[in-house]
Amino acid sequence: MKLLVTGGAGFLGSRLIESLLQPDARDLLPPGARLLSLDLSPCPLRDPRLASVVGDIADRDLLSRLVGPDTALVFHLAAVVSAQAEQDFDLGMAVNLDATRALLEVCRHQARAPRLVFASSLAVFGGELPRQVPEELAPLPQSSYGTQKAMAELLVADYSRRGFVDGRVCRLPTIAVRQGRPNAAASSFASGIIREPLAGLPSNCPVPLDTRLWLSSPGKVIDNLLLAARLDGVRLGPRRALNLPGISVSVGQMLDSLERLGGPGTRGLVGEEPDARVAAIVCGWPGDFEVERAMRLGFVRDSDFDAIVRAYQNEASARA
Amino acid sequence: MKLLVTGGAGFLGSRLIESLLQPDARDLLPPGARLLSLDLSPCPLRDPRLASVVGDIADRDLLSRLVGPDTALVFHLAAVVSAQAEQDFDLGMAVNLDATRALLEVCRHQARAPRLVFASSLAVFGGELPRQVPEELAPLPQSSYGTQKAMAELLVADYSRRGFVDGRVCRLPTIAVRQGRPNAAASSFASGIIREPLAGLPSNCPVPLDTRLWLSSPGKVIDNLLLAARLDGVRLGPRRALNLPGISVSVGQMLDSLERLGGPGTRGLVGEEPDARVAAIVCGWPGDFEVERAMRLGFVRDSDFDAIVRAYQNEASARA
Repeated sequence: MKLLVTGGAGFLGSRLIESLLQPDARDLLPPGARLLSLDLSPCPLRDPRLASVVGDIADRDLLSRLVGPDTALVFHLAAVVSAQAEQDFDLGMAVNLDATRALLEVCRHQARAPRLVFASSLAVFGGELPRQVPEELAPLPQSSYGTQKAMAELLVADYSRRGFVDGRVCRLPTIAVRQGRPNAAASSFASGIIREPLAGLPSNCPVPLDTRLWLSSPGKVIDNLLLAARLDGVRLGPRRALNLPGISVSVGQMLDSLERLGGPGTRGLVGEEPDARVAAIVCGWPGDFEVERAMRLGFVRDSDFDAIVRAYQNEASARA
Repeated sequence: MKLLVTGGAGFLGSRLIESLLQPDARDLLPPGARLLSLDLSPCPLRDPRLASVVGDIADRDLLSRLVGPDTALVFHLAAVVSAQAEQDFDLGMAVNLDATRALLEVCRHQARAPRLVFASSLAVFGGELPRQVPEELAPLPQSSYGTQKAMAELLVADYSRRGFVDGRVCRLPTIAVRQGRPNAAASSFASGIIREPLAGLPSNCPVPLDTRLWLSSPGKVIDNLLLAARLDGVRLGPRRALNLPGISVSVGQMLDSLERLGGPGTRGLVGEEPDARVAAIVCGWPGDFEVERAMRLGFVRDSDFDAIVRAYQNEASARA
């Protein structure tokens, strides 16, 4: 039996793999099962059950070799992030749409349809938004990234309806606070404005302080991806895409938490120089969602932003 | 200056071309402009301004030759219809998604972004539906045809947002009563149960009589496609897709109209043998829509189903 994690070297992918290797994930990765990471760089984790494949998700032949009749579960996290997909349209289409389609095609041609967890994003929403996004609101992406994710969601749903895969789509909130370094995602600052000052470094907030973000800690996102993998697909019905729970917080409130938990002077490290390119993407995203369905299905969220900052601090000191 | 109609040999395409050749469409097809039809068979119309290209819409090289810097307007109607796309998944993907993308790509690489009118369908909707579908309801296609149309809609919107084309998407109601013969669309019966009995021929109604359909006469659909071409794209805002107006009629009411206008005995020609394959597709489509936005923009609909039948009868006798 085989599990595949695309984007397995990334921030989220490697955390997911770490969790899959824990004893309490034995139902997903039973003894004897192998776990494959596919990414442009090797997964930083080491484990006899883990094989790290370095390659391009857009390489269909490679996908054909990695997915087989014994592939029970695929987590598809590999993606070109928002700001990058906006800058390089063709790259975004090739990875976020075409590679997802190639992966689905490879799954389709297996004797047994693998279960597939696809990481989508709240970036599928945009335009004039209600204060709280309801379950059945039409995606109206205002970025090519959001467009590509919305298209891939439709593919996953149709492939599932036809029985080619058993797919479920998790629309991830903005994830903060991420360990590590800034990335090319437009939402990268949402981690940076906490992580950098906590390390005594300057950071910049490129959007107005009253911008509301829909946030989840990395830990809760991983919990939710694992739950999505365990869920009976029938419980999702035809609507395979789920808006994952998060908390609705303004950037100003995030900085209040920083000062409260990081100590005096930390907030002063955060500049407020606007960046129109980032704001154009992020300020169009919804800042709040109705998540009754996801909560009923057992998905989880953080209690508040202070809890997110504390979890980050604990983890950072544990890893130090 | 050049106009392109894909699917120009089809029922709707050839009617559209006929309308474009009329004097009152001079604003769209001014003196000296050329009109190209692209389809697998030649457009049945003859006019010195019209060139009928026989070829495959999925042939990107051909598209590159047909679209040029002088292409002002493209009507993209070519499609693999619902039942066929359900039966042949790969063909549906190739035509409804890939060819649409290829067409958009060719438009993108012109010096001036052409205006593009894309014919989508109410088949993008499905699942549990409210009595009336609101403007901002999320598509939830229950057929591969609907999925492919919904994906293409997203592409048209993103290409428009980026300025690659100036696109507008018309989600067409079920069109009845069509002249001609049955086709592979799951909704083909909606014309057949009127057209055949009026010609003294038997027909079959494969769905329950209380099935509600969202209908438009071919004439109103053509009026609306022309209006979509004339509309200033700015008036659409980010939501490029419009649910075109129609009327909500049950199949039973359609048969009442048939008897009223076709004379005694016509209804008796319609059998009621269920067809699960057709019902599975058509009964999942919404039967009623909120269309305030489209009406405000000037789109039109028929007054009632009797008017649709009368228009068909007048036309049929005019063509006879």
